[in-house]
Amino acid sequence: MAIQEGKVVIIGAGMVGSQTLSAVLREAVVNEIVLIDMNKEKAQGEVLDASHTTAFAYSSNVNIHTGDYSECKDAHIIVMSAGPSITKGNTMDRSLLLNKNIAVMHDVMTNITKYTKEAIIIVISNPLDALVYYGQHAFDYPRHKMIGTGTLLDTARLRKIIGETCGVDSKNVHGYVLGEHGESAFVTWSDVNIAGIPFEDLNTTFQTKLVKEEIYNEMRSVGFDILQLKGYTNVGVSAACARIIKCIVLNEKSVLPISNVPDGEYGLHDVALSLPCIVGSQGIERILEIPLTIAERACLERSTAKLKEENSKIEA
Amino acid sequence: MAIQEGKVVIIGAGMVGSQTLSAVLREAVVNEIVLIDMNKEKAQGEVLDASHTTAFAYSSNVNIHTGDYSECKDAHIIVMSAGPSITKGNTMDRSLLLNKNIAVMHDVMTNITKYTKEAIIIVISNPLDALVYYGQHAFDYPRHKMIGTGTLLDTARLRKIIGETCGVDSKNVHGYVLGEHGESAFVTWSDVNIAGIPFEDLNTTFQTKLVKEEIYNEMRSVGFDILQLKGYTNVGVSAACARIIKCIVLNEKSVLPISNVPDGEYGLHDVALSLPCIVGSQGIERILEIPLTIAERACLERSTAKLKEENSKIEA
Amino acid sequence: MAIQEGKVVIIGAGMVGSQTLSAVLREAVVNEIVLIDMNKEKAQGEVLDASHTTAFAYSSNVNIHTGDYSECKDAHIIVMSAGPSITKGNTMDRSLLLNKNIAVMHDVMTNITKYTKEAIIIVISNPLDALVYYGQHAFDYPRHKMIGTGTLLDTARLRKIIGETCGVDSKNVHGYVLGEHGESAFVTWSDVNIAGIPFEDLNTTFQTKLVKEEIYNEMRSVGFDILQLKGYTNVGVSAACARIIKCIVLNEKSVLPISNVPDGEYGLHDVALSLPCIVGSQGIERILEIPLTIAERACLERSTAKLKEENSKIEA
Amino acid sequence: MAIQEGKVVIIGAGMVGSQTLSAVLREAVVNEIVLIDMNKEKAQGEVLDASHTTAFAYSSNVNIHTGDYSECKDAHIIVMSAGPSITKGNTMDRSLLLNKNIAVMHDVMTNITKYTKEAIIIVISNPLDALVYYGQHAFDYPRHKMIGTGTLLDTARLRKIIGETCGVDSKNVHGYVLGEHGESAFVTWSDVNIAGIPFEDLNTTFQTKLVKEEIYNEMRSVGFDILQLKGYTNVGVSAACARIIKCIVLNEKSVLPISNVPDGEYGLHDVALSLPCIVGSQGIERILEIPLTIAERACLERSTAKLKEENSKIEA
Repeated sequence: MAIQEGKVVIIGAGMVGSQTLSAVLREAVVNEIVLIDMNKEKAQGEVLDASHTTAFAYSSNVNIHTGDYSECKDAHIIVMSAGPSITKGNTMDRSLLLNKNIAVMHDVMTNITKYTKEAIIIVISNPLDALVYYGQHAFDYPRHKMIGTGTLLDTARLRKIIGETCGVDSKNVHGYVLGEHGESAFVTWSDVNIAGIPFEDLNTTFQTKLVKEEIYNEMRSVGFDILQLKGYTNVGVSAACARIIKCIVLNEKSVLPISNVPDGEYGLHDVALSLPCIVGSQGIERILEIPLTIAERACLERSTAKLKEENSKIEA
Repeated sequence: MAIQEGKVVIIGAGMVGSQTLSAVLREAVVNEIVLIDMNKEKAQGEVLDASHTTAFAYSSNVNIHTGDYSECKDAHIIVMSAGPSITKGNTMDRSLLLNKNIAVMHDVMTNITKYTKEAIIIVISNPLDALVYYGQHAFDYPRHKMIGTGTLLDTARLRKIIGETCGVDSKNVHGYVLGEHGESAFVTWSDVNIAGIPFEDLNTTFQTKLVKEEIYNEMRSVGFDILQLKGYTNVGVSAACARIIKCIVLNEKSVLPISNVPDGEYGLHDVALSLPCIVGSQGIERILEIPLTIAERACLERSTAKLKEENSKIEA
Repeated sequence: MAIQEGKVVIIGAGMVGSQTLSAVLREAVVNEIVLIDMNKEKAQGEVLDASHTTAFAYSSNVNIHTGDYSECKDAHIIVMSAGPSITKGNTMDRSLLLNKNIAVMHDVMTNITKYTKEAIIIVISNPLDALVYYGQHAFDYPRHKMIGTGTLLDTARLRKIIGETCGVDSKNVHGYVLGEHGESAFVTWSDVNIAGIPFEDLNTTFQTKLVKEEIYNEMRSVGFDILQLKGYTNVGVSAACARIIKCIVLNEKSVLPISNVPDGEYGLHDVALSLPCIVGSQGIERILEIPLTIAERACLERSTAKLKEENSKIEA
Repeated sequence: MAIQEGKVVIIGAGMVGSQTLSAVLREAVVNEIVLIDMNKEKAQGEVLDASHTTAFAYSSNVNIHTGDYSECKDAHIIVMSAGPSITKGNTMDRSLLLNKNIAVMHDVMTNITKYTKEAIIIVISNPLDALVYYGQHAFDYPRHKMIGTGTLLDTARLRKIIGETCGVDSKNVHGYVLGEHGESAFVTWSDVNIAGIPFEDLNTTFQTKLVKEEIYNEMRSVGFDILQLKGYTNVGVSAACARIIKCIVLNEKSVLPISNVPDGEYGLHDVALSLPCIVGSQGIERILEIPLTIAERACLERSTAKLKEENSKIEA
């Protein structure tokens, strides 16, 4: 069997899309990366800039180029990072952003589905869960192949905050942020631990003053803080996207909290939100039902309700 | 002997500095990266964003933080990416940029040398060679530790252009761009080859229509093209900087065309420009004198003259 | 500050030492690796063979060479893999192996301490905990710098067995094997989980038939199985050692279950055994006291008693 | 399009095959590696040992297992490392080894071709060129998919010897060893250079005493030296094989000197030997005809004659 070329198409050459190009390039797991943007000049500029890294030792000679939607035909993974984002000073009304980006998502999906329903689509644009839901629902896209970076980034932030406070590698901090990639996200506190030391005991063990509410607020606000501080966010979320891509290409079966439309898991239907998923070469291989406390389950329901309410406002 | 922490300080949190932070982080060869910017908010935003990548599998738990110049005290490598750059639509007069950035360099060096003359300084800001010369000369900084990314990026671009045209990995294209990181840069055409096939034979071998002048023009203009297309350049030059850093930390003794002030090599003094250097843990271990044709030597002299003329305009 | 060369000295060029050389070389985090063996020819052969990999793209030009104990003077990390091992068909009495390898350890430590008490020593040879204890105790070596790969490998095996059975990336399986790197090792079952799903619920979730005792037996016997199947074990333990080295060099503060002599943690003194440790540039920065059930604490006591009994048989 | 699983089958679980398993695993570019050996126990032991590395941070959760030839059906790359090798003290007559390993190759190819003629086969066993020739010729296997590591290793050795003597990263030493992976191998001295400095000038530049004949002899004998010193060679050749695999999977189009049956290039037919090849996802995309001096061409002819003579002794 001939080697099939691993191909990633990135839609959107803005701060997030271009950073994702860099991140995927550095993973060196696929041999073709295509960048598509309505602004063809911007896409071409990013491709040229990135292509100059491939001549250095330690850099793989990956084929990077621009293109149009026909490139999706034989793509394995499509990253959706197009559409306006909330940026510093951008006071765009949230529901306005919703409908603007749903329109973008509609266009993007219309174009993608002309060529494929087999690629795994990873959504980064916001409001993330609404876009994942709309993309899956309105285009009857295979559930397990329509995913969003979701709370994978929020989870990384949670782990970093706790790890840094305790002086421990954040790779050793466990627990998830689930639900909406947005204000109704919630932490599975009952499962947060460092090397098996539960959250309740961390302050004693590490002589810290960790407070759930403060951590939650910092985790929730840090994205907004970055927006205020640097004008946009892109590095963290691009790394999250690259992590998902590596997991898919290497068929790792890693557990990642990412957005998708459940099919009855946790009793949920008709909504997209982040749940712990086993991810492999087919996309989401399974949504894992992990134990939740009554309070956590209530959070999940609240997040679900909020998202369904939001989805209902989509002007189809 | 205790492990000494490998520490990189990056001065400037703009497009180049922040991308360099990402690139160095991904190399995973140092355990502390500090980002300094007059705009502390921008630096803090970039640090926060980058720090969220360290919780993912495959990401090292490197210590990333902001700071002030006192961080240079125990730094091994300092990256200078501060100062205004030429950006799209920025029609700043070149000599104006020169004096603006010399002033920035003066400030930066004054601050660095309060704390260290042992760190290797890698300049990325432009006009690159003037800044390297000024930094070394005005502060009597050790020659081998005051370097600039220089034509390492131009060389990568040359190799990419030729490699892509011929359908060959650019890592297999050889030959250097030397001299000024700017308009008087020149190609060592006599040494350009793919796997030993000299430039003259490439068109026959690969059925291409490579023309020296066209390649040279493309190599020279592609940076400007990227500027026009995406508004700035950052990915390629950051990868060049990260390549130098890896070479220094691992003491690789690789040959890299980078800017520095020669001490008589090629008959040159009192100017900074890019020449092929053996790079190791002490910075530039040696400037390699490679064979140049009479024409190439003339180019070197022209580049030298232009740079000396430029240096003479520095308002000290 | 000049870059200090990261230097690893590996003592013992047998199957484990030579595989560790390959593993450390591939990590590309240090720039000098020295291989020492009484059989100088074997060491030289391994160094030559490994050195031929550095010319390939993607391989760092690390300085690999043989040497004598004086190389330890400026080493940051010393790997102790010397001495006879249990091999297929080797029916050596365990207490005989103990005293043979204690004698080897005595020699090695005598030689090392002529040159340094600052390097972090990572013991791989068996019986591991006895050697770590003897090395620390008899030479008054700094506790936090005398460590052994210990149950880091057993933990990897536990996680692989569970992960493979459940179809989940073993990086998402948590829980430790602690105590002796040997027959009295025990599993912290109360903490074993996949993404927060406790061991008790794994069979329901994954429709598996995991039984603690069977997993424990497989984890315990798989090393012996490998011995019978291929004649020796080396790949897994070398990867464990390289993981520790990367953690030290990058100062990651990761939690790793490795052997060392506790100073009152868990009420333990005068014995070396594996406990979860925060590992950084100084070696063990802290032994983490994680919650143990009464049964697990009993296992720890049993392991301690066995190891103390074994240590008492050391013929000093 | 769904991600197709990148699959490598390694035939032979001896010193070379097992080291290749480790090397490919570390590249993290394919998601399934199968190890086949007549000695199923040995293969199982190596697989178990290697599988324990996947639980560590930084290790991909690749699917490693044993199997039989039916695994070749959907393999992309098959590594042939089976058959007896010359080992220390093994005074096996060379033509005896030839016919023993041709018999092994016959068996292996018979078994492979039951399932596929699409996989790229990389031969490591010796006498390498005879096996490549036989495998291609006797089974009418696609030329560009029947390759051998060949002089890629010899080239790495040449570059290392020169680079180490001159104190330069061997990745900056150019020039090839071509022809037989054996005694009639030859160096393209006219192309040997460091950063464009031709071989003739190296001694002046680096104040070395490089002598072609001595370098050639060292390059030729170092494999035998390693054999004498450690009993076998495996690390270098496994790294060469992993380099080829990475190049294929990422479709890099790198130029690698590897063995294959030319189709008229250099005027050659009906023989396998190493020539500089552009390697991509289809195997050898092209044999590059590089300039050779009259002396080098004579060497090529001598090597060809010797190999044809050897091939004629194959007892079909």
